[in-house]
Amino acid sequence: MARASIPVTKIAKEAGVSPATVSRVLKHPELVQGKTRILIENAIKNAGYDLEALVKQNSNNSNNVIMVILPTIENPFYNNILKGIKTSATAHGFPVIIYTGNIDSKNLSNLLFVSKKTCVGGIICLGRKLELPIANAIEEEIPLVQCCEYNKDASSVYVSINDYLAAKNATNHILNLNYRRIAFINGPISYNYAQERLRGFEAALAEREVTIPPNWKISLPEVSYSLGLSAASQLLGTDDRPDAIFCAADVFALSVIKAANRYGLNVPRDIGVVGFDNIEVASIAVPSITTINQPAFQIGFTAGETMFERIRDPEAKPSPILLDTELISRDSIIPFHRKVKLS
Amino acid sequence: MARASIPVTKIAKEAGVSPATVSRVLKHPELVQGKTRILIENAIKNAGYDLEALVKQNSNNSNNVIMVILPTIENPFYNNILKGIKTSATAHGFPVIIYTGNIDSKNLSNLLFVSKKTCVGGIICLGRKLELPIANAIEEEIPLVQCCEYNKDASSVYVSINDYLAAKNATNHILNLNYRRIAFINGPISYNYAQERLRGFEAALAEREVTIPPNWKISLPEVSYSLGLSAASQLLGTDDRPDAIFCAADVFALSVIKAANRYGLNVPRDIGVVGFDNIEVASIAVPSITTINQPAFQIGFTAGETMFERIRDPEAKPSPILLDTELISRDSIIPFHRKVKLS
Repeated sequence: MARASIPVTKIAKEAGVSPATVSRVLKHPELVQGKTRILIENAIKNAGYDLEALVKQNSNNSNNVIMVILPTIENPFYNNILKGIKTSATAHGFPVIIYTGNIDSKNLSNLLFVSKKTCVGGIICLGRKLELPIANAIEEEIPLVQCCEYNKDASSVYVSINDYLAAKNATNHILNLNYRRIAFINGPISYNYAQERLRGFEAALAEREVTIPPNWKISLPEVSYSLGLSAASQLLGTDDRPDAIFCAADVFALSVIKAANRYGLNVPRDIGVVGFDNIEVASIAVPSITTINQPAFQIGFTAGETMFERIRDPEAKPSPILLDTELISRDSIIPFHRKVKLS
Repeated sequence: MARASIPVTKIAKEAGVSPATVSRVLKHPELVQGKTRILIENAIKNAGYDLEALVKQNSNNSNNVIMVILPTIENPFYNNILKGIKTSATAHGFPVIIYTGNIDSKNLSNLLFVSKKTCVGGIICLGRKLELPIANAIEEEIPLVQCCEYNKDASSVYVSINDYLAAKNATNHILNLNYRRIAFINGPISYNYAQERLRGFEAALAEREVTIPPNWKISLPEVSYSLGLSAASQLLGTDDRPDAIFCAADVFALSVIKAANRYGLNVPRDIGVVGFDNIEVASIAVPSITTINQPAFQIGFTAGETMFERIRDPEAKPSPILLDTELISRDSIIPFHRKVKLS
């Protein structure tokens, strides 16, 4: 293995590139082009090593794998993202393995050790936002692409959506349907997406000078049906209830429909509901759920392609990518004035 | 690595054990006890190798990982099984990685190569039934536990449920509620579970001498909402429709509720629905779904524990385990005679 046999860090310093690029030249010289490769090859020769022998020794270990880090497989939203990543990886001939769990300072060194041994050529991190030192420690060793959640300050690239705009659009849609008493059920506020969606929700309300009770902005510690059900029951179980609920996840929207049903309330007649994600069950639910579609497959595919750009040229600094979302109008919300006429 | 440095197969033959056991003694001598270990140690010494040096060299590579093979992460039923596997693996200090995709003769050698390089200490195969030569080829190299789906003829152990009995119980429940016009929406018949559930469904009907039109027994090529929706629409779109539908997956049961809604039919008033799996959304659906609960967490945990038995003692042949299921009665089906009175 490269690190054991030659001083990669020293050579990287001499060539003015990252250690990852030196490893890349040793494993896949054909993928690193132009000036960078010449600089490294010279640095290796100057250090007295036999370049050809090193390449031969290292490329035997080049059975590269893309590792996807997922905090949990429970959120159905990840399905299509993984499909997109797999489609990209398969096209490049790389198998994909999934590591479930969060990466923290305790298991980081173990992850990096396993990654090196497992021929991991790149890590795509989905789910929880990485701490800055952790993101940078991974990036130092292995190309990293942050997907969905991201740490803006990390040196690694990210692929995500514009959550602020998406949530603002969804809230505007509700306001345009003439609702003013709107609650918001959000995910864990430690997540980037939850912060941005809250910001978008608040901005849309502020622009129309709509104010709501502070306890109508709920942030739950997890995206789960059961937590959504408690939150929705709390909102709907009083006389002073909202007329519409914007949910930062379709999972919560399904919970709201369930809670409404328990209180004898009808969606959309008594309560308008808007979700987020457009998971498969959003269209199967009765009523079907108006939601924000995330281009999940495209997010995954783009993350994969960005990864292969990084693998091909570790010195390149690709720009972050924020993909567009769209509102899908279904049956879970109708204009507010139409309800008044109906009742 | 053991195979490169000593003739594992030859030594295994001499000691009368499997190659996996020899590798185990080299990697984790402390885990292999008694006679087996002495036999192997003698065979290694007789072959002229320095046992201590070999163990030292090999145990450096013992950063073991459990690999779970999943055909797809899309079926939410796998969530709790994975949780169970992870709980067991974490207790034994092994990280879990997931490989998504099917294992066939084309990618088998690549999988085994990657597994060896990635310090995989055991493979738990979920999802599709393995072909016999493939199951045996894996077992030859790495301990294998088949989980949910299994090939009875393979030499590796399996952990699953009694699908035949579960489906028979579900069908009897429907018959006891006085339904006679019962349809069945099943998964791909190439799967073990689909064959067994069909057998259970048919046995229950036969015992009561109930016959149904042959086209009411539907086998779909995939467990998906959209396929379920087409099948249910076909069943419900005629005047000669069934009064109850038994679904081999809750995903299909949700599709039936949706299709009924489209035709202006009410579940459970006009159509009784029973699902299978007890995925989380089954209790959140409106109406909530009567279903067969699979002890998913326990299946996963048992598969994990069985794996660690195998790792600890590769010569042991643990027995297959079939866990019990139970019927969870919810709102998607009511007694048939009560409906008649209501209408």
